[in-house]
Amino acid sequence: MHTLDRREFAVLLAGFLAGKPARELLGRVGVHQGDLRVDGRRLNATLEALGRIGRNPATGGINRLAFSEADLQARNYVAGLMREAGLDVEVDYAGNLVGTRGGREAAALPIVFGSHIDSVPEGGNYDGPVGALAAVEVARVLGERGIQLRHPIEVMVFSNEEGGKTGSRALIGEVDPKELSLPTASGRTIGEGIALVGGDPEKLEQVKREPGSIKAFLELHVEQGSVLEQSRVQIGVVEGIVGIKRWNVTVEGFANHAGTTPMDARRDALVAAARFVDLAHRVAKETPGRQVATVGRISAEPGAPNVIPGRVLFSLEIRDLEMSKIDRIFEQLRAEADAIGRDTGTAFAFELFYVSYAALTDERLRQAIEQAASALELSHMRLPSGAGHDAQSMAKLGPAGMIFVPSKSGISHSPLEFTAPEDVVNGANVLLRTIVAVDAM
Amino acid sequence: MHTLDRREFAVLLAGFLAGKPARELLGRVGVHQGDLRVDGRRLNATLEALGRIGRNPATGGINRLAFSEADLQARNYVAGLMREAGLDVEVDYAGNLVGTRGGREAAALPIVFGSHIDSVPEGGNYDGPVGALAAVEVARVLGERGIQLRHPIEVMVFSNEEGGKTGSRALIGEVDPKELSLPTASGRTIGEGIALVGGDPEKLEQVKREPGSIKAFLELHVEQGSVLEQSRVQIGVVEGIVGIKRWNVTVEGFANHAGTTPMDARRDALVAAARFVDLAHRVAKETPGRQVATVGRISAEPGAPNVIPGRVLFSLEIRDLEMSKIDRIFEQLRAEADAIGRDTGTAFAFELFYVSYAALTDERLRQAIEQAASALELSHMRLPSGAGHDAQSMAKLGPAGMIFVPSKSGISHSPLEFTAPEDVVNGANVLLRTIVAVDAM
Repeated sequence: MHTLDRREFAVLLAGFLAGKPARELLGRVGVHQGDLRVDGRRLNATLEALGRIGRNPATGGINRLAFSEADLQARNYVAGLMREAGLDVEVDYAGNLVGTRGGREAAALPIVFGSHIDSVPEGGNYDGPVGALAAVEVARVLGERGIQLRHPIEVMVFSNEEGGKTGSRALIGEVDPKELSLPTASGRTIGEGIALVGGDPEKLEQVKREPGSIKAFLELHVEQGSVLEQSRVQIGVVEGIVGIKRWNVTVEGFANHAGTTPMDARRDALVAAARFVDLAHRVAKETPGRQVATVGRISAEPGAPNVIPGRVLFSLEIRDLEMSKIDRIFEQLRAEADAIGRDTGTAFAFELFYVSYAALTDERLRQAIEQAASALELSHMRLPSGAGHDAQSMAKLGPAGMIFVPSKSGISHSPLEFTAPEDVVNGANVLLRTIVAVDAM
Repeated sequence: MHTLDRREFAVLLAGFLAGKPARELLGRVGVHQGDLRVDGRRLNATLEALGRIGRNPATGGINRLAFSEADLQARNYVAGLMREAGLDVEVDYAGNLVGTRGGREAAALPIVFGSHIDSVPEGGNYDGPVGALAAVEVARVLGERGIQLRHPIEVMVFSNEEGGKTGSRALIGEVDPKELSLPTASGRTIGEGIALVGGDPEKLEQVKREPGSIKAFLELHVEQGSVLEQSRVQIGVVEGIVGIKRWNVTVEGFANHAGTTPMDARRDALVAAARFVDLAHRVAKETPGRQVATVGRISAEPGAPNVIPGRVLFSLEIRDLEMSKIDRIFEQLRAEADAIGRDTGTAFAFELFYVSYAALTDERLRQAIEQAASALELSHMRLPSGAGHDAQSMAKLGPAGMIFVPSKSGISHSPLEFTAPEDVVNGANVLLRTIVAVDAM
């Protein structure tokens, strides 16, 4: 139940006297009320409760892999919270958990907000859950205050974010049917996983939405980097999500006996790969800009201490807000790889296996986030998101905005991941106010 | 049956007239006879027959892992050849296949010669089999010629050479009982394997022999390098077997999100490891001498394209004829690793897990091999063995000598391993003549 305070009463009265319709006046009450805040204690309690699901007691790491038993249990918990918040809960064909509430205007497009609750192996409990649970809390507070927005709201918990953003990509029709047979870290295929959580992989196409079908999408998320912490800023206003390209790189040399092959007669694929790893790091570091390049996976064949590696496989990833910058850096690395190959008697081959296009956020939403933060007297700054997010897909359906809160020491995808309870609450309050502001746009 | 030729008859007659004992005269017949040669066609036929056991038809690679079904089948085949050669065949407690024949002098120490027939995964059919089958052929020819040496002979097919020289190390009492529970590439433990091939792991200590208990040990082997081929020399006279040290190296950095961690905030364990791999190669190549250094195995944790590696594990191996040189190179690398660690925010740790001491061959045996080669009009040169061999262990029991024949393109431990049939025969003939010469020492 929503009780009017003195200021709200004055606003309503003034509006009524000016002849404005009651509905609009009630909406404005929400926009203007200075005490519109989430229940921070409750929000952090749900975050803590969720963090007990899939936790490895030995390490503190969260193992809530999409489509695992822990994921199922966590989804049930959050579905319960959605129902407590007064939302209508359903699982769509892509396995997204959706909590909806109608708006005052029947034809208005929905304001969609949310995040995910699945984790990487041995991850943390902030990457995803902060935004997902804050979304539920925002919906709950709006309900408790009796604030019905003009637009319908949809609280989204996207399926399989960590394993390839299946849920949000299904909403834009980008999940290739072949993907359904890919295995996930849970041991189940994506198709099996979708069915397990209550979706229907055979009807995946039916969840596709059209561009222009949403009023806005908003996602609160932990930064997963250290920019906010180092800048001592409370709220990050995300300018966009960087594009990503990933290659499988193969270096072919010649495997031979490590004892009988003189140093100058070797074609050592690992020596060549090592030079490339060092090079990629140096080029990404020394080129002006905010691009990053990473080699995260490597193996040498045949892989014995007494055999010169004849083949090395590794991954290369480059990220930047500009796709063309990614391509320029890659071309530079490829040219230098050829030189390494000539020098070492090896050959490099690059196979592009993953592309994620950069997605910019909406300028009006950025400003709305900044105004919300300012109204709450929270410091804020703009920054890119180096990580991929469901917001990337949702940006194709309408204006998208993202709110970041600080990650301790910039650590994520780790049991050491941490965001302070007050930062969680700050982010949720900014989300709440931004949604109310968007509703009035 | 042995038929005297005209020259042999003259030698015998002259000796007889000079009053020498008949036994010595018969022995000398062997030493001097110009046509004492193995049956090259037969030898290569047995090599070809053995090569059908454990061959992967798709690649041509030999998979005769010690203690596998293919190894068992190969041992049975060679045991049959030993019996055809008139040897008494038994399997000792360490699983070595031993063919013996008594000498003319009851108290004389045995001349031991042989090699191994097990292979690495996807290896070739020359590394081991050339020496093992040549040893059987040598024994067979001596028998056919009716030449009984003064010394007993023992033809050895050592067990599990590729998996740790179990058979020959058992003969010098160096197999730790704990080793018996180590797994081998066959899937069986070493203890299970020894029992499978007819040995008895519980009585392993009983096969131990004492220093001074053999007249000599001789091993013919393919070079596994390209020195002979590049020098266009037919016979290698091995100066010694290099020492080996192997380390497990761990680089500790910090795993973090590859998208959100700026380049200058990374502690990337793989970048640090890559610099070390390049360094080790360069130092081993540029330091004067014949030492080699190899990183053959590497893995990065957690090992995902989108996570900065927090830990990297790799192997480091250094070989040289001088153990002190190995240590000097290692200390240099370790000091430079510390510098890399400081530069990258990572820490290196080195754990020595394998030492194989260098073993020099006997100068008199080297000369005997050279004389045998010269008598056969074969070119020869001295060189170290970069690979470990059973001769290394046997050198602790008495004088050891090794004969190398060329490996095509220096390739070994590969389906492409090849030694020309005429080189196999050359090596066997040098082995035969060296044994006869040693018998007269």
